[in-house]
Amino acid sequence: MDKMETAVLLSGGLDSSVALHWAHRNHRVRVALSFDYASNHAERELKCAAWQAASLGIEHRVIDISSISSHLKSALLSGADDIPDGSYDEELMKQTVVPFRNGIFLSIAAGVAESCGAQQLVIAAHSGDHSIYPDCREEFMAAMTEAIRLGTYAGLGILRPFIHMSKGGIAAMGQDLGVDFSRTYSCYKGGAVHCGVCSTCMERREAFREAGIPDPTAYAPAE
Amino acid sequence: MDKMETAVLLSGGLDSSVALHWAHRNHRVRVALSFDYASNHAERELKCAAWQAASLGIEHRVIDISSISSHLKSALLSGADDIPDGSYDEELMKQTVVPFRNGIFLSIAAGVAESCGAQQLVIAAHSGDHSIYPDCREEFMAAMTEAIRLGTYAGLGILRPFIHMSKGGIAAMGQDLGVDFSRTYSCYKGGAVHCGVCSTCMERREAFREAGIPDPTAYAPAE
Repeated sequence: MDKMETAVLLSGGLDSSVALHWAHRNHRVRVALSFDYASNHAERELKCAAWQAASLGIEHRVIDISSISSHLKSALLSGADDIPDGSYDEELMKQTVVPFRNGIFLSIAAGVAESCGAQQLVIAAHSGDHSIYPDCREEFMAAMTEAIRLGTYAGLGILRPFIHMSKGGIAAMGQDLGVDFSRTYSCYKGGAVHCGVCSTCMERREAFREAGIPDPTAYAPAE
Repeated sequence: MDKMETAVLLSGGLDSSVALHWAHRNHRVRVALSFDYASNHAERELKCAAWQAASLGIEHRVIDISSISSHLKSALLSGADDIPDGSYDEELMKQTVVPFRNGIFLSIAAGVAESCGAQQLVIAAHSGDHSIYPDCREEFMAAMTEAIRLGTYAGLGILRPFIHMSKGGIAAMGQDLGVDFSRTYSCYKGGAVHCGVCSTCMERREAFREAGIPDPTAYAPAE
């Protein structure tokens, strides 16, 4: 694989932390980009993102888009009490959609990547991303990739290395790459420890189980 | 034409002001969206945008994305002294490119439009938009339209009513629609009066000439 100048979208969660390590192994990572969009879990996620980038000696930028959030409608952006528990299968989870979030992230990342001379972006989209989120689906990712290729001088590419992998497969790859999972944060509720019952926490637990590796996450005791 | 709930991208320049009037005539305009990205000419443009929306009784929102600008490389975002004079044909004008600006604007607008129940966006892209700006070309617009359709619940559409029109044609249409062109602002330098010599000013003058209508713009005296 040719090494290319790369920018990585890094939320600080499990998937994107593995993506950062994968990109660091296979490309030249110029910058890791995080977005502060005033979500409930921003503070803890962003600390993990900073830690992961620093551990690899990669520049980390946090782009503040909280001023956009007041115009977007989502339970993720209001308060932890509004986050529904349970699996993503439920219609209820639609409340956690942030309209066109991945489109907004990828567009801004494309502008920043073009400005700093990168040739490609890496995003940790994976096969388990949910059909209730239209901007997580591969058909969207493919169309957005084409738009970004056509709309930039560099003809920026978007790599989705995990697009055909499950979250368990990503956790297993992260283990091989030496990712410290205790320095990743997933919970939508944003508490000091993972709540263990929201949809992302349930998926996180399941990923470690599926990968057959220890789960270093501190979960809140079941009530 | 079916009237649809519509959001309009409104910079406050000539083209987008005509687009707002066109959309008001043909659709139900729910909101006009402007972006403050800390450009040299933001202040004067945004005042014109607010005036145009108010004149039609349309809600106007200014979305502050100035925090993104520090990550983007462009003469438009630094100081008026860095804006080159002359026509867009010159390689020099590449300095005024804001990387992936239309992609960023359209993505955020898509999220906001989805949040407020609109079914389509209107953008004033036209045939004279320049090939030095890759994110102005119709091939980009078509790909981005597809990405936004796939990435939103509403399957949002993007209308480009002027895509096959010249700027002169747009000015002529604006005249028919009763647009007050004295309340539009184009100059990249952001002065109290239009400089008259930057590329956008030259195009503005030419548009009125081509349309055969009076140009109400106050230009700075030639030096």
